[in-house]
Amino acid sequence: MNEVTRKAKLVKSTEKQLRMAKTAEKNTALLEIGRQIEKDMPLILRANEKDVKVAQEKGVSEALIDRLRLTESRINAMITACSKVATLADPVGKVIKSWIQDTLRITQIRVPIGSIGMVYESRPNVTLDATILALKSGNPVLLRGGSDALSSNLAIANAIKTGLSNSKIPSSAVEIVEDTDRENVNRMLKMNEYLSLIIPRGGAGLIRFVVENSTVPVLETGVGNCHIFIDYNADVEKAVEIVDNAKTQRPGTCNAVETVLIHEELAEKLLPKLRERLSSKGVEIRGCEKTAQVIECVRADETDWETEYLDFILAVRVVKDVDEALDHIERYSTGHSESILTNDLSNATRFQASIDSAAVYVNASTRFTDGEQFGFGGEIGISTQKLHARGPVGLEELTTYKYIITGDYSVRG
Amino acid sequence: MNEVTRKAKLVKSTEKQLRMAKTAEKNTALLEIGRQIEKDMPLILRANEKDVKVAQEKGVSEALIDRLRLTESRINAMITACSKVATLADPVGKVIKSWIQDTLRITQIRVPIGSIGMVYESRPNVTLDATILALKSGNPVLLRGGSDALSSNLAIANAIKTGLSNSKIPSSAVEIVEDTDRENVNRMLKMNEYLSLIIPRGGAGLIRFVVENSTVPVLETGVGNCHIFIDYNADVEKAVEIVDNAKTQRPGTCNAVETVLIHEELAEKLLPKLRERLSSKGVEIRGCEKTAQVIECVRADETDWETEYLDFILAVRVVKDVDEALDHIERYSTGHSESILTNDLSNATRFQASIDSAAVYVNASTRFTDGEQFGFGGEIGISTQKLHARGPVGLEELTTYKYIITGDYSVRG
Repeated sequence: MNEVTRKAKLVKSTEKQLRMAKTAEKNTALLEIGRQIEKDMPLILRANEKDVKVAQEKGVSEALIDRLRLTESRINAMITACSKVATLADPVGKVIKSWIQDTLRITQIRVPIGSIGMVYESRPNVTLDATILALKSGNPVLLRGGSDALSSNLAIANAIKTGLSNSKIPSSAVEIVEDTDRENVNRMLKMNEYLSLIIPRGGAGLIRFVVENSTVPVLETGVGNCHIFIDYNADVEKAVEIVDNAKTQRPGTCNAVETVLIHEELAEKLLPKLRERLSSKGVEIRGCEKTAQVIECVRADETDWETEYLDFILAVRVVKDVDEALDHIERYSTGHSESILTNDLSNATRFQASIDSAAVYVNASTRFTDGEQFGFGGEIGISTQKLHARGPVGLEELTTYKYIITGDYSVRG
Repeated sequence: MNEVTRKAKLVKSTEKQLRMAKTAEKNTALLEIGRQIEKDMPLILRANEKDVKVAQEKGVSEALIDRLRLTESRINAMITACSKVATLADPVGKVIKSWIQDTLRITQIRVPIGSIGMVYESRPNVTLDATILALKSGNPVLLRGGSDALSSNLAIANAIKTGLSNSKIPSSAVEIVEDTDRENVNRMLKMNEYLSLIIPRGGAGLIRFVVENSTVPVLETGVGNCHIFIDYNADVEKAVEIVDNAKTQRPGTCNAVETVLIHEELAEKLLPKLRERLSSKGVEIRGCEKTAQVIECVRADETDWETEYLDFILAVRVVKDVDEALDHIERYSTGHSESILTNDLSNATRFQASIDSAAVYVNASTRFTDGEQFGFGGEIGISTQKLHARGPVGLEELTTYKYIITGDYSVRG
């Protein structure tokens, strides 16, 4: 039997134990994992140095190497995450609804989803972050990270498994695929017998590959072509603040803004100030014709409206009114996060009602679409699909439900 | 452009109107559809006769022809369904949760999923049932029924579209694929651009085909290898009642019981009575070795534990205790519905906690797993997957959610 099938079976075999695990047992396991990560820090750092060195020799870009690199402070953040997730409320067993239907008491309660396959790229911290959220929500996990982070991932997974062996959670609840051959990803994507869910984490290419090839249900995460519409009566200074925050605070994230739409009445007043602020942060503006009449900028074309830059670039378009803004968003949005800045109640309401994105804001930065910011205490990704979960995927979103029903020797009439 | 792509685009183009439609508008549309079905009853019956005749000439089985056949009373049931679904609460806009997070008010509200592709087999009433549930929950629908019911489906779809044209819901919100070439199903399954969800309704073969080939998220419905475990202290008379109900009330449904597990202490007392009752209903018993020591029966083998008979056949196995019953169910269940009949509180609790099926009963027939019986007022199928929805899929399960968030020009720190 090949490695990935063998490990998937192992992971699956722990489902029942995970499902029945008590909250305290899961919390102890998380704390033991944190303790072991701390003990193994020198090992993990050494393994990571190896990965970084190989990547540097291959001439990988500095941005990618930064994703790959672990530092003492990054590992400390992983340790903190363990104790933090341990303090979060356990979603398993929570009653969603309960009602009486004739002779039956029907209760809908949260239960774990089952074995989860994580397919991810170069960030080795995903190995830990995904594992602790999966375990806390009662789900075993089969990990398949990128080949460039293999040594780091193995060192982290080793610490996780050692930590688990000091707890009541079976260490086979977490397995990592060591053979990073692409064929093993293909195998995982067809393992409906062993896996209940696949979560891809990484670039658009990886996600598309998983969506197109998986017969196991997928939780699609990631692509965010996010918009901010600045209405005629928005506060100009505050609007500049928000666009700056949404674009430059962390431009490489999926909740960063990519296109700003500006009501034509406000364009002349707002655009120079916006340009001034963004220039000082090194942001390139790609503007429509009307924008170019007010400020100096690169001219935008169709591709700019479609692009998730993930960079210090912002597309800007002047629109006639909220309707034109809604049409633009309806056409180009990837359904992640959109925001309107306005003091017009009717426009605010319409914007929130009519836009079909995971998060629709009034007077706030799109950067808030995040498990931490939503108060979930963590997230395994941000879902851009409609099924099961939308927006930040935290502990609750890693559960499903079942109905427990009690009758009085009830038969259907 | 081929028919199915053209119609998928049409359906998709109505998403925003459907999303924004008022409850009263949707209800009027449903009533208009019912009215038109009533007007068109002679046309629909005539079209159905044609389908039935072709099927008979092909030598199709009587069971299949029964599924295909429409009668005045079946069409009346469709008309009643329209007014019934109109009276159900609209799930769209319902607040699931709302909380304050720093400067933000975050509200999670129910919204439609978007365009749904229905792929189904010979029952023409699915054309109407699926449509009205989809419309009420704000989702446009692309229908692709089986070729053997084509005339009936077209007649019903025609009535639906005429009904819609007398309402504010666009008639393109419902389109039916007329070219039943299998290639059109393949096309639908890859239409991630236009469809947000595929729901297959039909036999195990169709469902497997859809799961294996769809890149669009699928709501898997159907296969139910359901179990009843009769514990040592169950009431014998009532247990016989429940098994009878679960097996014979409608053996062709996915929530019918397929295997009964009996505690060995009760076997001698229960089995003869069970056999007597089931024989009188024409049910064949396939028993394990211990069962065969108590009553006359066909001997069961491994395949019997795995089979969803959908017929007047019942597998019976004597087990040592609740643990052996749990192990059997863990191994053979398809995760649909299981029941324990007992007066032992500890066993009842363990059974409900440890079994990972959509519905886990104490002292009730498995036949209750049904949208109608749960009080949902209807269902589009019974989900046996973990993601998004489990058990009966009613109006609420045909929605997703989004977050609407209001800040005070809030930026992320």
